[in-house]
Amino acid sequence: MPGLLERYRKYLPITDRTPALSLHEGNTPLIPAPRLGEQLGVQLYLKYEGLNPTGSFKDRGMVMAVAKAVEDGADTVICASTGNTSAAAAAYAARAGLRCVVLIPDGNIALGKLAQAVAYGAEVVAVNGNFDAALRLVRQISAAHPIALVNSVNPHRLQGQKTAAFEIVDVLGQAPDVLAIPVGNAGNISAYWMGFTEYHAAGQSANLPQMWGFQAEGAAPLVRNAIVDEPQTLATAIRIGNPASADLARAAVRESGGLLDMVSDDEIMHAYNLVAREGVFCEPASAAPVAGLLKRHAAGLLTPGQTVVAVLTGNGLKDPDAALRAVEAPQAVQASLDHVLERIL
Amino acid sequence: MPGLLERYRKYLPITDRTPALSLHEGNTPLIPAPRLGEQLGVQLYLKYEGLNPTGSFKDRGMVMAVAKAVEDGADTVICASTGNTSAAAAAYAARAGLRCVVLIPDGNIALGKLAQAVAYGAEVVAVNGNFDAALRLVRQISAAHPIALVNSVNPHRLQGQKTAAFEIVDVLGQAPDVLAIPVGNAGNISAYWMGFTEYHAAGQSANLPQMWGFQAEGAAPLVRNAIVDEPQTLATAIRIGNPASADLARAAVRESGGLLDMVSDDEIMHAYNLVAREGVFCEPASAAPVAGLLKRHAAGLLTPGQTVVAVLTGNGLKDPDAALRAVEAPQAVQASLDHVLERIL
Repeated sequence: MPGLLERYRKYLPITDRTPALSLHEGNTPLIPAPRLGEQLGVQLYLKYEGLNPTGSFKDRGMVMAVAKAVEDGADTVICASTGNTSAAAAAYAARAGLRCVVLIPDGNIALGKLAQAVAYGAEVVAVNGNFDAALRLVRQISAAHPIALVNSVNPHRLQGQKTAAFEIVDVLGQAPDVLAIPVGNAGNISAYWMGFTEYHAAGQSANLPQMWGFQAEGAAPLVRNAIVDEPQTLATAIRIGNPASADLARAAVRESGGLLDMVSDDEIMHAYNLVAREGVFCEPASAAPVAGLLKRHAAGLLTPGQTVVAVLTGNGLKDPDAALRAVEAPQAVQASLDHVLERIL
Repeated sequence: MPGLLERYRKYLPITDRTPALSLHEGNTPLIPAPRLGEQLGVQLYLKYEGLNPTGSFKDRGMVMAVAKAVEDGADTVICASTGNTSAAAAAYAARAGLRCVVLIPDGNIALGKLAQAVAYGAEVVAVNGNFDAALRLVRQISAAHPIALVNSVNPHRLQGQKTAAFEIVDVLGQAPDVLAIPVGNAGNISAYWMGFTEYHAAGQSANLPQMWGFQAEGAAPLVRNAIVDEPQTLATAIRIGNPASADLARAAVRESGGLLDMVSDDEIMHAYNLVAREGVFCEPASAAPVAGLLKRHAAGLLTPGQTVVAVLTGNGLKDPDAALRAVEAPQAVQASLDHVLERIL
């Protein structure tokens, strides 16, 4: 299967000078979840974005953004990020032969979160200040130098991300009734809606889904309609208090007849475990839409028999500690058949 | 793309009673590595097995082994493992609705390595003793109870693993000249050879590859032709001193006109970095075949222009610490444009 730029060329801002950049991103599995679906009374599928090259949906937008950076003559890409964005930027920069600079806030540098970016050869610079200070600096730098900014303010990111909607339609033969998705910076729900509407306009699907976005209770600026100064949730990938794409996300929900709702960290971790019991390991943030579906089902707000796709945005290997939070080290038993059988039978 | 059991049904030991188990394993990308290939003077491709559902090639064998366990009436699968095998066993057991029991040696329990298996719901039992003691116990237990052993002694594992060779032929249109692969327990090199020869016999490819297996110097029982009592290498996935499939591996190398060689940990980590600079993040063990190709090129032992596939058996996210081993935490700079530009320009 070719990469996204080749596969969906006619739907993307590609010219004759855009390089054929690819790490075989996209084409991620749409996995039926029969047990969870039965529990919810719907036909449930999991769009497992964790099997992208760097382990998250960010690869879809980054392949487009870095290809355009090459086309525009940049020799370096830059971003402010401590997570999935930096990994994707570093991987595609390496592939394209560009430098990648990652600015991170100085406080609480968890170098482990940056292992991927470092492996791909990114140059990490810690600045005295918070994330907003880092983001302000990368915007200033990219405005004055041939250095391409690949944070989510880069419009090519959403163009690439919309291809996930195309893939869902290509597999199902039509759009689902409901697309349930985690909402942090709010770009992805906007990109999916762009993808569904463009594919519909092109005659590729007869219908459009309702867009259901789910935030964490401690980081729910869209649901609460107020910026959250200090967002809190263990679903780190959606711990965002002032989403960059807030307006686009609201439009997607309004135009699709969808909704925005929030779920607690306990509900997220419960859903995280249920998803793993289907054989799929995702980041905590990825479990938010499943938690949201469970919440709405409990309230009698799911329509039985509908086709529902929940987007799992990242691979569980990105945050292995989450899986171990509730686990104690096992007590050792004697290495004899009787002792082991007594433990397991 | 359907899973392996459906896609390659006619080549696998599948009956009408074998369940259609799948997590969309296989169909992993064959990524060209143009810079590394130019350095080596060959057409180099990386078979990136890290994009299997649990992040390693083990999923190919495990989907087959667990499907047969269901067919045979088992309600539980069991294995002795501290790594990729336990993750794959737990995921497919969860998917199939079976219990999964994982026995681990008591010493040095790195629970982090077991995060995946735990997430998928495996029951982990630590036994007082070493790995061999744990393996002896799971063999005894499975012999006396309706509990399926899914360690590599299970012959269905190699059947599933051979499908990776099919995929390479399906993409290239023929077998490569050389298949370079890490060798630990020696099952995978045997499975690939089985796949290439079966596909060749079925008329799917006109040629057969040379099988080149690479071990780590501190864990090279096949190269040294002697069991290694205390194998040592930072490439943990191939830290094995007494390979279960030694005879099959030797036959694969002999019949294909291939070779076995070994590489140092320094050579492995150098190759690991070069692979990442192509935009691909793998486990250290996965870099062993690339290190081997570099070693042979330096000795003038690569044939220019040949097509070479290096198998990257696992995802780099399985061992993020490896990426950080040589990295120091970045020194913070002041959050001003001048200070950051001074650092990066």
